[in-house]
Amino acid sequence: MITIDTLSPRLLDARYAVRGPIVNRAQQLEERGRTVIYCNIGNPQALQQRPLTYLRQLLSLVEYPELLRRAETERLYPADIVRRARTILAQHPPGTGAYSQSPGLPFVRQAVADFITKRDGIPADKGHIILTDGASKGVQAVITALLRSPADGFMIPIPQYPLYSASLTLYGGARIGYFLDEDHGWQLDESILTRSIQDAKKRGINPRGVVVINPGNPTGAVLSAENIGMIIRFAKTHGLAIIADEVYQENIYDQHLPFWSFAKIMAETGERDVTLFSLHSVSKGFLGECGHRGGYVEFRNIPDDVLAQFVKLQSISLCANLVGQLATYMMVAPPQQGEESYAGYISEKEAILHDLKAKAEILGNGINGIKGMSVTVPHGAMYAFVRFELPGGKDVAHMRAAEREAYEEERDSAYCLALLEETGICVVPGSGFGQKPGTFHFRTTFLPPRAEIEGLVAKLKTFHERYTHDMSVA
Amino acid sequence: MITIDTLSPRLLDARYAVRGPIVNRAQQLEERGRTVIYCNIGNPQALQQRPLTYLRQLLSLVEYPELLRRAETERLYPADIVRRARTILAQHPPGTGAYSQSPGLPFVRQAVADFITKRDGIPADKGHIILTDGASKGVQAVITALLRSPADGFMIPIPQYPLYSASLTLYGGARIGYFLDEDHGWQLDESILTRSIQDAKKRGINPRGVVVINPGNPTGAVLSAENIGMIIRFAKTHGLAIIADEVYQENIYDQHLPFWSFAKIMAETGERDVTLFSLHSVSKGFLGECGHRGGYVEFRNIPDDVLAQFVKLQSISLCANLVGQLATYMMVAPPQQGEESYAGYISEKEAILHDLKAKAEILGNGINGIKGMSVTVPHGAMYAFVRFELPGGKDVAHMRAAEREAYEEERDSAYCLALLEETGICVVPGSGFGQKPGTFHFRTTFLPPRAEIEGLVAKLKTFHERYTHDMSVA
Repeated sequence: MITIDTLSPRLLDARYAVRGPIVNRAQQLEERGRTVIYCNIGNPQALQQRPLTYLRQLLSLVEYPELLRRAETERLYPADIVRRARTILAQHPPGTGAYSQSPGLPFVRQAVADFITKRDGIPADKGHIILTDGASKGVQAVITALLRSPADGFMIPIPQYPLYSASLTLYGGARIGYFLDEDHGWQLDESILTRSIQDAKKRGINPRGVVVINPGNPTGAVLSAENIGMIIRFAKTHGLAIIADEVYQENIYDQHLPFWSFAKIMAETGERDVTLFSLHSVSKGFLGECGHRGGYVEFRNIPDDVLAQFVKLQSISLCANLVGQLATYMMVAPPQQGEESYAGYISEKEAILHDLKAKAEILGNGINGIKGMSVTVPHGAMYAFVRFELPGGKDVAHMRAAEREAYEEERDSAYCLALLEETGICVVPGSGFGQKPGTFHFRTTFLPPRAEIEGLVAKLKTFHERYTHDMSVA
Repeated sequence: MITIDTLSPRLLDARYAVRGPIVNRAQQLEERGRTVIYCNIGNPQALQQRPLTYLRQLLSLVEYPELLRRAETERLYPADIVRRARTILAQHPPGTGAYSQSPGLPFVRQAVADFITKRDGIPADKGHIILTDGASKGVQAVITALLRSPADGFMIPIPQYPLYSASLTLYGGARIGYFLDEDHGWQLDESILTRSIQDAKKRGINPRGVVVINPGNPTGAVLSAENIGMIIRFAKTHGLAIIADEVYQENIYDQHLPFWSFAKIMAETGERDVTLFSLHSVSKGFLGECGHRGGYVEFRNIPDDVLAQFVKLQSISLCANLVGQLATYMMVAPPQQGEESYAGYISEKEAILHDLKAKAEILGNGINGIKGMSVTVPHGAMYAFVRFELPGGKDVAHMRAAEREAYEEERDSAYCLALLEETGICVVPGSGFGQKPGTFHFRTTFLPPRAEIEGLVAKLKTFHERYTHDMSVA
């Protein structure tokens, strides 16, 4: 029989906090009848966000093309959606039922290229786009392709989205953490990056790429054009590829903060040497279609033979799921002004983004009103990375780094577990993302329905006061 | 810039012939206006097989639940499908839009367990089932989890489905080939298995598992209960896990050959020690829903802590796509007698299977009528592994194994490329699957429309005669 001591040590070591032990405990409690508020994961439709009508209408027609031959369909669907479904099936007669070419349906990849051109005012090539089962699979492909040995590594932010640390552990690469600057809205700092890479090289690690998440997960920060320009120059200096995780590009709640893509800044600065992998997904934004597992990677500054290896890698799993490919198509090519669905699309889109903005502010400002808690009110993404203070504890000054890390992880995990048991609120401990030694955080989404967010803040306050009080007198 | 010499050597070495250079050439020809008959891949709906109506009706309702509130829906959909859609959305209100639990929707996993119980008359546990994006992802998970170092390996058949060789190369494990017995309908032979494992151990390889594809890809063979019993005893003797690739379990065209699952034979023989991973998929059978990327792995004889590691692995990619999960649900829980959709379901199912059987026979018998070609007429799956003779060639008796392999690969690849250029028929060279030294094969599907199969045989005949004649006189 296969026993645990004969499994891959890389698998055993891999950790993915977003679905870790606290979430397992939450599921247990729920099975016993407790109400759990899942703030652990960016899964909007699990928390009552409604899907966009035009997207679902289109998918329902494409799944069952017989509807296109029925008179009732005209009454059930807007004319532009019916036309669009016919066009899709004309371009790809097997619809959702057949494997596509490995990198994905050509007309969808063309639509992605057009979307990038329209968004950034720069040329884009459908031959440089691969459709993936969500952005996660794109990230895993890049890591798989670029790691030659355990001495190769990627720079990843602290705090980071644990997909990166988990994938590096699983595929056998080194993690080169760089701290984000909490005191400056979680932007990247060149001196911190430089110190981090120098330190890694001293340890014998070969840095292959730098991961940047913009807007940030878990920080909710939106990077400035200057900051992105600095990162590109840094990557060039050190011969790094850039993995730009841009899945939250539509989730920006401050009109003064535009989304700057790495592709655009590269094009504007004429950068032709730094390889860029940029990732997008249907799971986030205002679509929130997590279950459909759609997304893409765009490649820039990459030789054809390298690109061919990525296509081959994709071919081993045949292709991304076709419904996800079509959801990606609808994301990048929504209804246009003059089409029947346009007004409804715009109104649903704005309602969702408006709601997310309001919830980010209610949550952020609410938390900043709790003594011993603070947070950068999120300008983007779906998360707040909340700092909290814990009184007492051992003297950590003389601990070794690993010992201290384990001790602090024990403390923030205990806090989050107690929060869950007492209030039903499920958040993820900061140690799952990484945090500065001596600081404690948790990540929460601001996705629960608006009416629940104020209650959530109140519960957090009561819990935090009780927990830290008990700790002080213990 | 990332250059090819800095990519993972494992990725560079990985080969996946089913979508390799000959298929790339076919796509080129097609773009230039040539008609290509894609016999390289089991992709039924790309070759005009129609999807099952009940499955697509259900997916179209679940994608757009608003339909359930419209009066027209009663006229467009059978009542049982409407009821089923309501039940699904009641059990899982976010429908297709949200991530599920990592191993998949609980009610779907329960339905899979019930399906296994009904199929085999044995108990099955939903806790031992993980839903995957097609069977390929399940295979990759097992290989990822069980490989500890490059000295670990898996026994895989020759000929094999190249997913196995590609995944082993990519994840860094050794390939331990064992020949299937072409003279005995491609069954497994214990003495060949024993020789193969002894030989591997002498080379310092640690065998972790044995892969068995039943019904066979590319062979089309259906294994007997005795053969499966032998494999289980062999696995037990050598401490191997079994990876049972059973995705073609519905594709059996001889009523005297039942499908025996490894799970059933294990249960009947009281085997409690050999770990079993059995794989199924919505891509094959009579569904042919390749584009939906649905499937599952069932685990038997596995400790809970090992299972938990597989769930964690799945969680790093969040979960399988929800539409694929629902397609899997419909595969294992089709309409029942007495329900409105039942008659239509049975008639579509039988028409597809009847057609596949007829095409297997037309193709197999036709090929056996060509001088210099022979094939075991497929009893199962979707493929024929056709043996053909090539006159002339170098004296290979004194070549080293690797040299001979490269030379023979050159010859069968040249043959398949010439076939493509001359006739538009796209098949995969036998070297992509593995074959006995000194023999040549290609794999073709029998999926093209029935009316085209006879023409295909005629084209093969003309081509083969011309090609071998030219070669003889050259």
